[in-house]
Formats: sequence, structure tokens, C-alpha cells
Amino acid sequence: MKINRYQDISEIDREAKKDYIDRHSAFVHCEDNAKAGEKFKVKVQVGDEYKHPDDFDHYISYVQLWDGERFLGEANFTAGTMGNAPTNVEVDFYIVPTKNMKLMAHAYCTKHGLWQSDEIAVSVS
Amino acid sequence: MKINRYQDISEIDREAKKDYIDRHSAFVHCEDNAKAGEKFKVKVQVGDEYKHPDDFDHYISYVQLWDGERFLGEANFTAGTMGNAPTNVEVDFYIVPTKNMKLMAHAYCTKHGLWQSDEIAVSVS
Amino acid sequence: MKINRYQDISEIDREAKKDYIDRHSAFVHCEDNAKAGEKFKVKVQVGDEYKHPDDFDHYISYVQLWDGERFLGEANFTAGTMGNAPTNVEVDFYIVPTKNMKLMAHAYCTKHGLWQSDEIAVSVS
Amino acid sequence: MKINRYQDISEIDREAKKDYIDRHSAFVHCEDNAKAGEKFKVKVQVGDEYKHPDDFDHYISYVQLWDGERFLGEANFTAGTMGNAPTNVEVDFYIVPTKNMKLMAHAYCTKHGLWQSDEIAVSVS
Repeated sequence: MKINRYQDISEIDREAKKDYIDRHSAFVHCEDNAKAGEKFKVKVQVGDEYKHPDDFDHYISYVQLWDGERFLGEANFTAGTMGNAPTNVEVDFYIVPTKNMKLMAHAYCTKHGLWQSDEIAVSVS
Repeated sequence: MKINRYQDISEIDREAKKDYIDRHSAFVHCEDNAKAGEKFKVKVQVGDEYKHPDDFDHYISYVQLWDGERFLGEANFTAGTMGNAPTNVEVDFYIVPTKNMKLMAHAYCTKHGLWQSDEIAVSVS
Repeated sequence: MKINRYQDISEIDREAKKDYIDRHSAFVHCEDNAKAGEKFKVKVQVGDEYKHPDDFDHYISYVQLWDGERFLGEANFTAGTMGNAPTNVEVDFYIVPTKNMKLMAHAYCTKHGLWQSDEIAVSVS
Repeated sequence: MKINRYQDISEIDREAKKDYIDRHSAFVHCEDNAKAGEKFKVKVQVGDEYKHPDDFDHYISYVQLWDGERFLGEANFTAGTMGNAPTNVEVDFYIVPTKNMKLMAHAYCTKHGLWQSDEIAVSVS
């Protein structure tokens, strides 16, 4: 199964391709360090500089958050949750880590398949 | 089907019952007013003054966010996401409203069933 | 929150109303008796005599199966899974009962909200 | 992210490894041919010759069905749906194809990560 990955868009010439890659890519935003046993916020956002449609036949229907091979959570949406206009889908998960993590997110676009974020290492002490 | 509801725990005498009701109840936290077409943050939290276990056989497995009869999103967890210790499950949804909303959340406990929050009216202009 | 229920459509005069109620209602189909510890098939079907659209802005996005207050499973779909034509959404769950059950299903239509099936009693011995 | 795959267990010597691989692997069972516009049954089963536990800290929490890069559906379970005893998780999806498909399933074990089935080609005419 093909899982798409982010590419550094500053190295891509064609505007349409920059847009396509950026708006589908999942990004994990969180602190680099966490305290074991304390609640820790992790934002998953889809797209960075470019927005994704929220059309009935073309929207982000779910994001998942993973720590390596361990599933942490999933958020599901329907078309219209984002007002049927282009935007960056976001969700904040709150997790409680007990050891170092390698966080990674998946985002699924109903037209352009599954996209995987870069992995973010979090030190937990 | 029985859907449990929050009761004002200040009016409940028995400590165990206060705890039981509070830690299972879903709460919607957001501003009272939103701008049409702009991203709007809605926190769903389970429990307020009391914490809920995150045991393998007893945890909050999902929360849903509704606007009246309209489903906006769902977040799923597995036991362990909250470090296997008592806490208040939280998730922040970001939605884009287009008209007035009546937000409501569901939370499901794998031992004690489905719990529905109070409804929060949001004026959208 | 309003949860819609099946009504006996033979007692409804207006054809449009029969159609509306029937095509949204969830039905649980299974044997009346099950053996404890053995796999047991439970079909959830949406609609009986009338079909529901599978349009991008109007489709059945999820069904849930419950035993009383206990969540057993959920199936999620996206528009197009049913070929974008009217049909009866179906899913077969396989569960392993250990005691008597009261099975009930929910179905969610992206335009017309949440619908709850009648409850089906299953004797488990 | 590591996604595990089925290996032909007849070529594996060690019994524990045969068991580990077989009981986690997802299998897609369906006809080789389908009629466009007609409902088509697709069974997803986890494990073939070996059973998987349904323990609170070790169970199959979800399966997904894909047609190439297109998500068709997902079924979620909680521990206990399979009676807390070893078994093969099963779910029957009903889809309506419009063109040739390459069906594939994912299964997630809460202890041993994500497993991907072989791809099944279905001719649709």
C-alpha cells in the first residue's frame, strides 16, 4: 500500500506540486521534552502553508497519532466540519507518556489517499 | 438505550456518587461566540473535579462532538494512551461554524456506558 | 439529543414518510439463541424495504452495535463505499457472547441524524 | 512506520513464530469477480490457523478495508467483544464496486502493531 510522505517543498519548483504535497501532509507539533506521568499536548495539523478543501467529495476524513508501532488515538470527521471551505484540519490530543516516544501522524484524504508525517522524537524523563 | 447525564454534584451528599458522576461526565469548553467561517476551538474533557482510571479493563474509549443532531467528530483511544493512571481525558477539536450551534459531547466508559454533556449554545455571527 | 426510532411503516399513510423512516432505520438481524463462548453473527442493516442514498453529501457514515449499555463495535464508511447509488448499508459483526444480550444498533445519516434500532433479546446458554 | 506482513507459515520452522505471524495477519476473503453496481461481500478475518487473544491488554482493536489507496471502511472493537477468549476476529463488509479493485486489509493488535494482508484482485464487470 502506498503511503505518501512529506517532501521539503522549498526544493520543489512547480507551484501546483508544492501545494499538493503541503496541503496533504500531516504535521506533529509538540514540545521536544515531556515529563513521565504528566499530560502532554500533541497537535496534529494537516497542511502547513497551503490549505486543503473541505468539499463533500474531497476532505480529510481522519487523522491518527502513533508512537512508533503503538496507536495512540484517532480523530474522525465528516465533510462540513470545517465549514466546507479550505482550511488546515487540526486536532489536539492529550497523552500521558511513560517513556521516550517517536510520534508520527497519518492523515487520510478521501481523494488522495494516506499521508504520513515525519517522526518527532520526544524525550521523556 | 440509557444515556447518563451530568448532575450538579454540589447537590449530592455521598462522596462516592459525586466521584462516579463527575469523573464520567463529558464537558464542552469553548467560547460563547464564534465568527462564521473562522476556525473555532472546542475542548471536550471527561470529568472535572475527579479523575477517571485508564486501566485496561476500564477506560474512556471514545468521545464524540455533536452540534444538535449533526455529528462533528469523534476521537478514539486505547487503554494506555493516558499512561494507565487516573486523569481527565481531553481532546481539542477545531471546527468552522457557519451558523449558531448547540454543542454537546458524548463520552464512553468501557465499564459504565455512555455519558452525555450539557448542551452549550454558541452564537455565530 | 434527539435519537430517531423505527415506527411500524404499515401504519403510516404517507409514502414519503414511510420511505424516510424505513430507509434510515437500523435493524439487527441474528438468531434468538446463542451458545456461550461461541462466535455469533449479528447483521446490522440500514433500511428494510426502502434504500438510502450514497451521495457525497448524504450517506450513512457509521453504524454501532450495542449490548444494552455495552459498546460492541462500530463500522465507519465514506461516501462511495456503496457505489454512490441507493442501497441498504450492511455489516456483519461476529461477537462471542457470555450471557444474555439485548442487542441494539445505531446508524448515523449525514443529513438526518442518529437512528436507533429496536432491541433484540438473545438468550445465551 | 513498520507495517507487518503475512509470510507463508509453511516455510517457517519454529512453532512460536508460525503462531505469532498467522494469528496477527489479516486475510481478505471474497469472490474473484464482482458485478458493477451490485452489493459485494468482503470478509476480513484476523488469523487463519491460529487464534488471537481477546485480553484487556492484548486484543485486535480495529480492522480497515482498502481498495488500493482508497479507504472503504473500518470496524472498531473493544476488548471483550470476543468473550475474552482466543478467536479469529471477523467482520463482513458489503461494498458496491464500480471498477476493478485491489482489496487489502489492515488489522491492529494493541501489543504487536499493524498488520497488512496480501492484496486480492477483484475483476468487476
